[in-house]
Amino acid sequence: MKKKTIALTLSLALGFLGNFQANAEEPISVIKAPVGINAGLAELGKKLYFDPRLSKSGFISCNSCHNLSLGGTDNIPTSVGDKWQQGPINAPTVLNSSLNVAQFWDGRAADLKAQAGGPIANPGEMGFTHDLAVGVVASIPGYVNEFKAVFGKPDVNIDGITQAIAEFEKTLVTPNSRFDKWLSGDKAALTADEAAGYQIFKESGCVACHNGEAVGGNSFQKLGLVEAYKTNNPAEGRAAVTGKDADRFNFKVPTLRNVELTYPYFHDGAANTLPEAVDTMGRIQLGKTFTKVENAKVVAFLKTLTGDQPSFLLPILPPSADATPRPTPFK
Amino acid sequence: MKKKTIALTLSLALGFLGNFQANAEEPISVIKAPVGINAGLAELGKKLYFDPRLSKSGFISCNSCHNLSLGGTDNIPTSVGDKWQQGPINAPTVLNSSLNVAQFWDGRAADLKAQAGGPIANPGEMGFTHDLAVGVVASIPGYVNEFKAVFGKPDVNIDGITQAIAEFEKTLVTPNSRFDKWLSGDKAALTADEAAGYQIFKESGCVACHNGEAVGGNSFQKLGLVEAYKTNNPAEGRAAVTGKDADRFNFKVPTLRNVELTYPYFHDGAANTLPEAVDTMGRIQLGKTFTKVENAKVVAFLKTLTGDQPSFLLPILPPSADATPRPTPFK
Repeated sequence: MKKKTIALTLSLALGFLGNFQANAEEPISVIKAPVGINAGLAELGKKLYFDPRLSKSGFISCNSCHNLSLGGTDNIPTSVGDKWQQGPINAPTVLNSSLNVAQFWDGRAADLKAQAGGPIANPGEMGFTHDLAVGVVASIPGYVNEFKAVFGKPDVNIDGITQAIAEFEKTLVTPNSRFDKWLSGDKAALTADEAAGYQIFKESGCVACHNGEAVGGNSFQKLGLVEAYKTNNPAEGRAAVTGKDADRFNFKVPTLRNVELTYPYFHDGAANTLPEAVDTMGRIQLGKTFTKVENAKVVAFLKTLTGDQPSFLLPILPPSADATPRPTPFK
Repeated sequence: MKKKTIALTLSLALGFLGNFQANAEEPISVIKAPVGINAGLAELGKKLYFDPRLSKSGFISCNSCHNLSLGGTDNIPTSVGDKWQQGPINAPTVLNSSLNVAQFWDGRAADLKAQAGGPIANPGEMGFTHDLAVGVVASIPGYVNEFKAVFGKPDVNIDGITQAIAEFEKTLVTPNSRFDKWLSGDKAALTADEAAGYQIFKESGCVACHNGEAVGGNSFQKLGLVEAYKTNNPAEGRAAVTGKDADRFNFKVPTLRNVELTYPYFHDGAANTLPEAVDTMGRIQLGKTFTKVENAKVVAFLKTLTGDQPSFLLPILPPSADATPRPTPFK
């Protein structure tokens, strides 16, 4: 009911009452700009997100692998970690990640705050420890002042650091895609092929998993439902969290928002292009081989899901003090 | 004459005619905002500067080591290159680098355009080739459109890529430091200690090398003039370019603009803090041991050289096409 009420209000506001019934029944809903953001906290989090001093090497920041210039991803199959270690799994986009049911491919973090601490202390990623990261941040006067302003006291701890990063990440929602305009009643926002692609996307069953505001991100599903997914990647999916054999190869369904920008695809990053990803998904999840024309139309539709990318001034980070522990990239 | 005329105009405009004579004679001059920038070319260059697809791995961009969130440096002694190779020398700041007499510590590149091609093709840095980088950029429709708009034709070549990056780098001038305000006549812009530090800086002879608009960057000088500089770093300095033994250990004098942000110091990045750098420079270049109080005053002065940092929206990069060659970080 709540969703319908919002949709009705939107439709009325936009003067597209005639489309209300149809849009309220669409399996994908318009993505909404975030509300209730604590601006000071998000600003602090933005700096921390871009700060490589949260890594042992001083070279890797959150933005290294979730690059906001590149759709919130690194556009490589699996990420580069400390000392060039090869990451185990494709870095998911940070864009619209606040809408995910949980974080990481296997959902092992309940929310963005819980996620943010992971890579910092992961020996294969930023290679640091929470204590050392806190020590660095607490030694930087510019950060201490911001912690004081935001939290009311100058104490720096990992809880504050991850809370700030999460608050910044909540701002990374991408509204105003052409598809959202279409959903809101502007039927000229999609070409005939794109609209036809959406019909195929719905009728073939893609929307069974890729639905809601983020066009995914809201459930775990078995990869290789109809036909086994072939990969050398050893990731077990949700089973690694629940310990249940039934959860083997259950992964969080990725959002398709901005999917044009978040290549390569799948948890192993094995699909370089959208045509390839659509073909594979059709076959192994739906038992359906899309024709070339169908595939092209679905891809055309998927490209209409690219929304407004984050728009903010490059953050300027507060300098280290003489007493700030120095990074050790080569030790 | 030209400089004096500008200074006079400035002084008149600011109503500080009384200070004109003194300031015109200062060895450091006010840094001026860049003029004649081609905005479209610089905008293209900004994207390329942030684009890790100019590297073999898809992980390293110009901004990785000349990080504009960190004073145009990476704040580590020597940089991290492709496959985590350790760089041979400290990455100099890109800020105000258009004012340098030449680029690199040994001046082996005549200008910013010549410099920009270096790291792309350096096996220890971005690890790519110019041909491969051109192939990637030429395969990205968003870039091809920008090349067409800027150069009048859609042809992508290394000349256009490096020209654009250089044009962007020319915008990275940092005016309005407190010292510039002081130079322009606002004597309240410096504290008594900072002004005293500047006097020590002048009277001790630091200004013999650190002078002009960039407070350095305009000459090559012997490191270890009075006392040998002890380092394990094998860099030979200017001799590597000229082949002359007399140029051994001649390095480009680094700019001191924003020096508060560009730690660690020296070509080997061996000095972590400004007090340490000032102490070493006094001893080995000037044969002078600064007292603790003198050192603190010089450091206080140096921190007044931090100017306005680059201020622009984080660039959003055009996505790769299906045919774009993919990065190979682990091959």
